[in-house]
Amino acid sequence: MKQGEKVLIAQGGGPTAVINQTLAGIVLEARKYPQISKIYGALRGVSGIVNQDFVDLTMETSRNLEQVALTPAAALLSTRVKPDEQYCEKIFRVLKAHDIRYFFYIGGNDSADTVRIVNEQAKIANYELHAIHVPKTIDNDLMVTDHTPGYGSAARFAAQAFAGVDFDVRALGGIYIGVLMGRHAGFLTAAAALASNYPDSGPHLIYLPEREFKVEQFIADVKETYDRYGRCTVAVSEGIKDASGQPILTTLGKDLDKDAHGNITLSGTGALGDLLTQCVKDNLKGLRVRSDTFGFLQRSFLGCVSEVDQFEAREVGEKAVQFALGMGHAEGSVTIHRVGDYVVDYRLTPLNEVAGKTKVMPDEFINAAGNHVTEAFKAYAKPLIGNDLQPTARLRAPMVPKLQCAE
Amino acid sequence: MKQGEKVLIAQGGGPTAVINQTLAGIVLEARKYPQISKIYGALRGVSGIVNQDFVDLTMETSRNLEQVALTPAAALLSTRVKPDEQYCEKIFRVLKAHDIRYFFYIGGNDSADTVRIVNEQAKIANYELHAIHVPKTIDNDLMVTDHTPGYGSAARFAAQAFAGVDFDVRALGGIYIGVLMGRHAGFLTAAAALASNYPDSGPHLIYLPEREFKVEQFIADVKETYDRYGRCTVAVSEGIKDASGQPILTTLGKDLDKDAHGNITLSGTGALGDLLTQCVKDNLKGLRVRSDTFGFLQRSFLGCVSEVDQFEAREVGEKAVQFALGMGHAEGSVTIHRVGDYVVDYRLTPLNEVAGKTKVMPDEFINAAGNHVTEAFKAYAKPLIGNDLQPTARLRAPMVPKLQCAE
Repeated sequence: MKQGEKVLIAQGGGPTAVINQTLAGIVLEARKYPQISKIYGALRGVSGIVNQDFVDLTMETSRNLEQVALTPAAALLSTRVKPDEQYCEKIFRVLKAHDIRYFFYIGGNDSADTVRIVNEQAKIANYELHAIHVPKTIDNDLMVTDHTPGYGSAARFAAQAFAGVDFDVRALGGIYIGVLMGRHAGFLTAAAALASNYPDSGPHLIYLPEREFKVEQFIADVKETYDRYGRCTVAVSEGIKDASGQPILTTLGKDLDKDAHGNITLSGTGALGDLLTQCVKDNLKGLRVRSDTFGFLQRSFLGCVSEVDQFEAREVGEKAVQFALGMGHAEGSVTIHRVGDYVVDYRLTPLNEVAGKTKVMPDEFINAAGNHVTEAFKAYAKPLIGNDLQPTARLRAPMVPKLQCAE
Repeated sequence: MKQGEKVLIAQGGGPTAVINQTLAGIVLEARKYPQISKIYGALRGVSGIVNQDFVDLTMETSRNLEQVALTPAAALLSTRVKPDEQYCEKIFRVLKAHDIRYFFYIGGNDSADTVRIVNEQAKIANYELHAIHVPKTIDNDLMVTDHTPGYGSAARFAAQAFAGVDFDVRALGGIYIGVLMGRHAGFLTAAAALASNYPDSGPHLIYLPEREFKVEQFIADVKETYDRYGRCTVAVSEGIKDASGQPILTTLGKDLDKDAHGNITLSGTGALGDLLTQCVKDNLKGLRVRSDTFGFLQRSFLGCVSEVDQFEAREVGEKAVQFALGMGHAEGSVTIHRVGDYVVDYRLTPLNEVAGKTKVMPDEFINAAGNHVTEAFKAYAKPLIGNDLQPTARLRAPMVPKLQCAE
């Protein structure tokens, strides 16, 4: 055990509600190891490493770290940069210059790939480095791990939003389309179903990127639901695709006009929701149709956190440090394994099993018609959104007989 | 005091998170009066009255009423019908046929007007009726009352959303535009400012329907903010208007293309957010610009409730019954009056002071530039969103000196 070793932490990709729990977990756990002299944080992910924009997290109070842990979105700031080999070389040179021996990168599958490349370069250079990928993404699309920290809180947002929206649409009637994040994996969209309690509760239809989206079938599904319940609430993934794998936004956009510039933006706008709304209005005349795109709210809304997610996000950080510093592992991705109902354990998985790969919803989580989730999905996802969801109820008062009125 | 009198309750207009607290307040309080034999609920507001779609709320358990109270959106279902004199006559005939002597209508200023008309008709017919308007609206746009039940919880949603979004945009940079409800009154949009804690916290700009929206000034404001902070988060009311009082959606839409049908929908879509986004992109090249339209979430999201709002929504229901049954008042609108910091009292205000009228943000709540709120607004609105908001924090670690790297 050498004295005066340094730790570097960075955060990459999009925010989650609990990404700073992981940061706090790493910092507070690393402080327990006497060989560690400094804990640095890189600002703006990998770009902060190549630019040496480091802050000294050794100089953070425990209380402030705990407050930061409760704050959504990367406290170290983030980046969308996806490093290539050359970029990773720059990263490695900076790590070496600062004599950093432990590198923890909190992020998704791209971040895992960065950790993998940097670690290979360290091996080639015969530089002793412990580089650990610590998982984070609302998309829940990482391989091996049972689920990802960040998913549970975003899933809770989706569940609470749809539970409320269904009561809203029930009160005023009509059709509602909510567009959720997830370009390739439908886990977050599927979570819209997790707070349904009555047999006719919405979302009545769920469309995922894992299944071909057929416009005619969608219209038929909506009509059937509306005819049955007098309302229809629909959860749609932003990543839904046509038979050729093209995003539906592009397919539908062809039939409608482009904007003044001939472009259709694929995300960060209400375009998909508006196109689907128009599509329903064109085919089912006279109905009240509304759409919302959940956008940033689903990933950074303050105060919508699953405590299970919160604890696990903290633990993946702690475990990362224990794997690297306590057990001496050189590399890996921290993965969560469900070992009971509901209990988990953590392992260190080889980076090449996680890096750059995307997990999508397994077939058993999607119904045969491809327009909803199964009970197996609910059993999988319900423990992740926390236990203290607000219960809801409807009135159950009997009807009063009608009387003859004077004219 | 006669025996065997009947109460009728209805809910009108858009949902709030606490509208059923008021329903529960009325039912539970009315049960204490021995002269009341039946408490009816009309399904779908006034349309349920003319159709005699009544449920017998006397047959509801207290526990279920308490669960319903915690559920967003009208449990009695709602309507957008705005009755004229003739429609009110039909209402009155049904009330008479069922020998209903107490009518409580939970709703906004249109509902107050319905109560006013029905009450006048009862007077003309010499029919003893106690008709009370019980306030509810997320827009906070009713006259006389200090604020409306429903506003506090929606305002809390806006505050939590913008607090989180600002951390999100801070981590990844760029410009964010969030569109909130409020066609004429900016109170809900203004609430986006209520959870800001750092001097540079967003929303950096707030545009309200009470002030003319000038596109050039908006672009200049965004540019100045972005140049200063490297990000800019903007809260925009769906009701922002140009100099002629036309909705900006129409003004901007003229410069951009219409959809395939030549129409621009004014609400329930992401259109305004998308148009403003395009507007910023056209004028400030190369910036990352995103927009969200908060839509249904801001009024019915499950689990985002201000406890102050919750208690007051319950109390306006209780007070309505006390005014009508306990004190024998024939008519009025229950209003909330701030008598201390923060304590309120309730009064019964003549219907003609509330019915059909709209309150907008007073001048002292809007800054001189017309692009933000004042401290006076924050002092007014903060007590309404509840006391237990999740605090947030940033890291305050010092920067680490840069080193020379080997090439």
